[in-house]
Amino acid sequence: MQVNKNQIEGFFKDLQDQICSALEGIDGKSKFHEDLWQRPQGGGGRTRIIQNGKVFEKGGVNFSAVHGKLPANIKKALGVEKDQFYACGISIVMHPQNVHVPIIHMNTRYFEIESETYWFGGGIDLTPHYIYEDQARFFHQSLKNACDKHSTAYYTKFKKWADDYFYIKHRKETRGVGGIFFDRLNDADGFTKNQRFEFVKDVGQAFVPTYSHLVELNKDKSFSEEQKTWQGLRRGRYVEFNLVYDKGTKFGLDTDGRIESILMSLPQQARWHYNVQTKAGSEESKTLGLLKKDIDWINM
Amino acid sequence: MQVNKNQIEGFFKDLQDQICSALEGIDGKSKFHEDLWQRPQGGGGRTRIIQNGKVFEKGGVNFSAVHGKLPANIKKALGVEKDQFYACGISIVMHPQNVHVPIIHMNTRYFEIESETYWFGGGIDLTPHYIYEDQARFFHQSLKNACDKHSTAYYTKFKKWADDYFYIKHRKETRGVGGIFFDRLNDADGFTKNQRFEFVKDVGQAFVPTYSHLVELNKDKSFSEEQKTWQGLRRGRYVEFNLVYDKGTKFGLDTDGRIESILMSLPQQARWHYNVQTKAGSEESKTLGLLKKDIDWINM
Repeated sequence: MQVNKNQIEGFFKDLQDQICSALEGIDGKSKFHEDLWQRPQGGGGRTRIIQNGKVFEKGGVNFSAVHGKLPANIKKALGVEKDQFYACGISIVMHPQNVHVPIIHMNTRYFEIESETYWFGGGIDLTPHYIYEDQARFFHQSLKNACDKHSTAYYTKFKKWADDYFYIKHRKETRGVGGIFFDRLNDADGFTKNQRFEFVKDVGQAFVPTYSHLVELNKDKSFSEEQKTWQGLRRGRYVEFNLVYDKGTKFGLDTDGRIESILMSLPQQARWHYNVQTKAGSEESKTLGLLKKDIDWINM
Repeated sequence: MQVNKNQIEGFFKDLQDQICSALEGIDGKSKFHEDLWQRPQGGGGRTRIIQNGKVFEKGGVNFSAVHGKLPANIKKALGVEKDQFYACGISIVMHPQNVHVPIIHMNTRYFEIESETYWFGGGIDLTPHYIYEDQARFFHQSLKNACDKHSTAYYTKFKKWADDYFYIKHRKETRGVGGIFFDRLNDADGFTKNQRFEFVKDVGQAFVPTYSHLVELNKDKSFSEEQKTWQGLRRGRYVEFNLVYDKGTKFGLDTDGRIESILMSLPQQARWHYNVQTKAGSEESKTLGLLKKDIDWINM
């Protein structure tokens, strides 16, 4: 039996519950606030936001399932014939309080045009304010493990895709240490729909153990005011990426999506200072030096 | 004698000097830091930034004069035949410390393609964190006075243009109380090039007396932590406008301009909280209610 959209939607909703519960456990202070919303043209979502926690300054774990008619320009951009679409997915961004805990983002999504086409897409990427190579290695190894269960080609391909996607062109910097990114996975290349779905499930289920470990490693480290300022500057870059380049954000803004759900990805506070220069040999300078594409984190 | 590009460039440089000197006088603590830069493809600029002042948290008064070959897509977008261009101008954004002092932006520019076409463009707009109607009226009256000296049609037309341009579509909010915006002013509609230049000069020269007055009115007012947070949220909207909609910023990012000069427009600190609700009857609520197009500030 081929998996259908109800089963996929059910998985994403369960995953949202599971992730929110785990993140509340980690935080120990704040709980997610839920807003249910409906889209006038069809469907809706469950936006869940955590703010002012012990560990998380701000974060969102959003589920949505929407359907309706594709605007002509998007139909054209997607190269599809029919225009009745269905899309569901989860989108997560967590901005921690502690400068040593990395920002994380995950998105997994399913799109279909009934009796014409479907695909899965998604990705996870990590944005440390200070890069620790061993932690970046652990992160990439976790993603590679999830990938390798399904295809030995996945990690290499999707890791490169993330390097290219999460890139702040005008800064000539990657957003962080990358991760994986994939789109338009369907039953091509010898894969079945069920196999693609099993892969997406494993990516989604890798989130909690991977991020929990990274949070635990860093959440009790001390930091200075100067380091907090640096975190603000790195968050500024995150804002630049999301508002200038991120396709999901652009799609949401262009199609009159629910703004507060879309822009939950922005940090509670961000900074822009003029022409910041880092000291040679400093942790800040080292981090900047590692914001590059094509770093083989696992074998570096 | 028709004014030439050297005279226009000279005016903009003098205006930059005059404005920086006046703003330093107002601030009383910080001075502008100057960075001279060159554009590999031709021309360069004088970026001047003030940070951590008594009155100004961050601001820039930038002059640039660049020339070279237009990229094919921009040539097409501008609808011009030849591709050797020259452009000069001033761009200003000031982010004050005090929540009661408004953010201001001004840009005046000249563009030409030798022996084919030229035009002037520019604008001034005001973004108060808290809107005071009498101050908005004073601001608009000052701009109208500068406009009326040159054409009684200017203010109405350019005020509407600013309402449409400085609009955050996804928020359904104007950026602030607007101002004037104009582009492609050349020797059409019965105007000569010299007359257009005289108008641009008067706009540029309106900056100091107009903004100085607004700063003086507000700079010593006290404010609370809550109001400072509100300022951060309004600055967040400013970031959204500049990164998502502003054509000058987009042009700069797309054409590999000097990033630190382009993004000087972003505030030192900005905030995004989830789904902020203002109290009915509060100053914040009143301000939001006034972030609309087509308000006749002068006669309201």
